[in-house]
Amino acid sequence: MQADEAVTAAPRLTRKGQATRDRIAAAAAALMFERGVAGTSIEDVQAAAGVSPSQVYHYFKDKKSLVKAVIAFQTTQVVQAFGAVEPRYSRLDSMEALRAWRDFAVNLERSLNYAGGCPIGSLGSELAESDAEARREVAAGFALWERSVVEGLRAMRERGELRSDADPRRLGLALLTMLQGGLLLTQIRRDTAALEAGMDAMLDHIESHLIPA
Amino acid sequence: MQADEAVTAAPRLTRKGQATRDRIAAAAAALMFERGVAGTSIEDVQAAAGVSPSQVYHYFKDKKSLVKAVIAFQTTQVVQAFGAVEPRYSRLDSMEALRAWRDFAVNLERSLNYAGGCPIGSLGSELAESDAEARREVAAGFALWERSVVEGLRAMRERGELRSDADPRRLGLALLTMLQGGLLLTQIRRDTAALEAGMDAMLDHIESHLIPA
Repeated sequence: MQADEAVTAAPRLTRKGQATRDRIAAAAAALMFERGVAGTSIEDVQAAAGVSPSQVYHYFKDKKSLVKAVIAFQTTQVVQAFGAVEPRYSRLDSMEALRAWRDFAVNLERSLNYAGGCPIGSLGSELAESDAEARREVAAGFALWERSVVEGLRAMRERGELRSDADPRRLGLALLTMLQGGLLLTQIRRDTAALEAGMDAMLDHIESHLIPA
Repeated sequence: MQADEAVTAAPRLTRKGQATRDRIAAAAAALMFERGVAGTSIEDVQAAAGVSPSQVYHYFKDKKSLVKAVIAFQTTQVVQAFGAVEPRYSRLDSMEALRAWRDFAVNLERSLNYAGGCPIGSLGSELAESDAEARREVAAGFALWERSVVEGLRAMRERGELRSDADPRRLGLALLTMLQGGLLLTQIRRDTAALEAGMDAMLDHIESHLIPA
C-alpha cells in the first residue's frame, strides 16, 4: 500500500493542480507539527501556502480532509526518513545500521530543538479520540513504518545472524514503540536522555540475540 | 516534592472550598482525557462538575490555571497507580513485581477500550509546543514517576540481584519510555500489541542483567 493511496479519492488533478495540492498539504503539515491540529486554522494554512481560501477549499472539502492529507504527507516523510530506505542506515539490517538510525533520531531531535515529537505520533495522540478516521490513517501509517523496521530484522535472521528465538515482528514493533516513547519524552523534557536510554536498551536487547560470528 | 505542590500558589482554602476545587479539577481531568484540552471548554467543566461558571473562576483564574491543576491531578493519579506504591506490585523491586506491573497496564488499557493514552503523556503531547509552563509541569510529573521506577531497580541492585553493569537510572528511564510509547500506540492502534511487545522486550532486557541465584 502506498502511504498516500488513502487520500486519492479526490478527482484526478492536473500536474499543476497536484503541485498546488501538495504545497497546501506540506504547509498544513508544518503548521500542525508546530501548533497541533486544533491550533491551525484553514486561514493559517492558506497564508502559509500562499494560496487563496477558495483554492484550499477547491482541494480539500474541509479541515478533516486536510488533516487526512497531512497524515499521508507525514507518513511518507517519516517512512522515508526513518524507514529502511535512507542510504545512511540502508535496510536497518545490521547492528551498525540500527545504531546509526538511533544516532540519526537523536541528532534530528537536537536539530529541531527537541520540539514537535513524532510527526505522526503526535497527530495520533491529538486526534485518536475525536476523529476515528484520522486515527485509522495514523495506525495505517505506523503499520507501514513497522513493516520496514521488521524487514531489516527479518533479513538478519534469514542470514543466520539472529538466533531463532528472536522474533523479528515483536522486536521490530518493540523498537518502534520505544522510538515513539523516546520522541514523546524528548518533546516533553526538551532533552534526548529518554530517547537515548530507551533506544540503547532496545538495541542492546536486539544485540543480545545475535549469534556470535 | 509533592505532585500538587506547584498549584498551591492559590489562597488557602476552607475544607469545603478545597473539595469543590478538587471536584472541578477531577471533572476537567476526565474531560481532557476523553477530548483533549482544546476540546474541553470551561463551560463543559462547569457542567460536568455541577458548579456555576463563577465558581470555576473563583478557583481558577483561566483555562491555563485549570490545565495546571489537571496536570497535578493526573500526575498524582498516575504515580499512585503506576509508581511504586500499589500493593499489587509493591516497590517494583523484583521481576515478579515488574511483570505484574506490565500486566496491570495491559489490563487497564483493555478496560478503557484502548482509549486515552497516558493521562500525563497525552497532556504533554498536546501542550508541549503551546504552553511552556504546562510542558514543564508535565516534565516534573514524569520526573517524579521516573524516580519511583528507578528506586525499585536500585533496590534490586543494592540487594545484589542486578549485575553491577546494570544502571538503574538508565534502565528505569528506558522502561518508562517504553511504557509511554506503548500507551500511545495502544491509543492509536486500539490494541495492546505494541505495549505488550515493548514491555516484554524491556523486561526481558532487565532480566538479562539478573545475577543467577
